[in-house]
Amino acid sequence: MSDIATSRRSRITPEREAELYRAVLDLLREVGYDALTMDAVAARTRSSKATLYRQWGGKAELVVRAMHSQKPGGIADVDTGSLRGDLHTIIGREDDCDMAQNVALMRALSMAAHQNDELRQALRDLLVEPEIDEFRRIIGRAVDRGEIRPDTPALDYIVHMLIGAFATRMLIDEQPPTQAFLISYVDAVVLPALGVSPPR
Amino acid sequence: MSDIATSRRSRITPEREAELYRAVLDLLREVGYDALTMDAVAARTRSSKATLYRQWGGKAELVVRAMHSQKPGGIADVDTGSLRGDLHTIIGREDDCDMAQNVALMRALSMAAHQNDELRQALRDLLVEPEIDEFRRIIGRAVDRGEIRPDTPALDYIVHMLIGAFATRMLIDEQPPTQAFLISYVDAVVLPALGVSPPR
Repeated sequence: MSDIATSRRSRITPEREAELYRAVLDLLREVGYDALTMDAVAARTRSSKATLYRQWGGKAELVVRAMHSQKPGGIADVDTGSLRGDLHTIIGREDDCDMAQNVALMRALSMAAHQNDELRQALRDLLVEPEIDEFRRIIGRAVDRGEIRPDTPALDYIVHMLIGAFATRMLIDEQPPTQAFLISYVDAVVLPALGVSPPR
Repeated sequence: MSDIATSRRSRITPEREAELYRAVLDLLREVGYDALTMDAVAARTRSSKATLYRQWGGKAELVVRAMHSQKPGGIADVDTGSLRGDLHTIIGREDDCDMAQNVALMRALSMAAHQNDELRQALRDLLVEPEIDEFRRIIGRAVDRGEIRPDTPALDYIVHMLIGAFATRMLIDEQPPTQAFLISYVDAVVLPALGVSPPR
C-alpha cells in the first residue's frame, strides 16, 4: 500500500503536499472527521477531487497521511547509544503545544474510527503499526547492547506503557501530556519495568 | 452528593434498584448515551419520570450509578497481605465476559463525556475518583508493610499504569482485556516499576 501511495503522491511537489495536509488538518479541527468531505478539501486547496482520489485513494488515507506528516521526523533516526537517551530524544522533538494539538486530533480520529472500518484500518496501517515497529527497533538495540535482558517480561508491553501514558493523562489529570510528564513517566515506570537502572 | 443520593435512593428496594439499573444498561447498549432518554427508562421500567428525577437527579447520575452497580464488590474489602495478592484478587473478581461488556460501555460513555460536562463530572465523582482512592489505600498499605519504598517514583503513576493497560489493550491488540492479560501486565510492568520482587 505504501509503495503505491508513494508513487501516486510523487506527482506533486513536497511543498504542495504539505500545503494540502495543513488544509486537511485545519478542516479536521473545524468540522471533525465525519463531516469532512473531499469536496471541502478540493475547494479549500483549489484541487480537483479527481486529483485527490488519484493521489490518496480516499478520505481515510488522506486524513491519516496528513496526521502522519505532523510527526517530527522518524523515530528510526534516533540512536543515542542508550535507551533512556533515545526515549528522551523522541519525547523532546515535539513541543507541548504541538503535542496537545496532536493528542486532541488523535482522540477525535480514534473516536470516529470506532464507527468506521476504513479509517480504523488506515490508522493501524499508516500510523500505529509503523510507530510500534520503530519502538521495537529501539528496544531491540537496547537488548543487543545488553541494557535489557532478553527475557524481561515487560518487553511485551512497551507500547502499552507508552501509549497508556498518553491515553490516561487527560482522563486522570485533566490536562494534556507534556514533555515533562512523559519524561518523568519514562524514568519512573518504563525504564524500571524493563530493569534499566534509573539515572542518579 | 453521595449522602443525598443515598437517602434519595433509600425509598426503593435494592431489588427494584438492581432491576432499574439493568434496564438502564440495556438501553445504553441499544441506543447509546446521547439517544437514551428518561422517558425511555420510565417506559421500560414502568416508573414515573418524576420518581427517576427525584431519586437520581438526572440522566448522567442514573447512568453512572447503573455502571457502578456492575462492579463486583468494593476494592476496599480486599486485603490479602501482599500487593500482588491484592491486585490479582481484584482482577479475579470480574470474569472476562463481564469485563469485555463493561469496557465497551465505559468506552461509549467516555466518548459521550467529551461533549457533555455533566456526564464527565458524574463519571469522575462517582466512578473514577472513588476507584483511584481505593487503589491508593491498597498501595498505602503496601508502603506501610515495607513492600514499596515510600520514595518510589512510580507511586505517582499507579493509576496511569492500571487504566493504561485497559485503554490500550483494544487499540494495540484488537481484543478486550482479559484476566490473564491484566495479571500478566501487573506482574510484568506494575510490580517491577514499583520495585516489588516478581514471583518465583
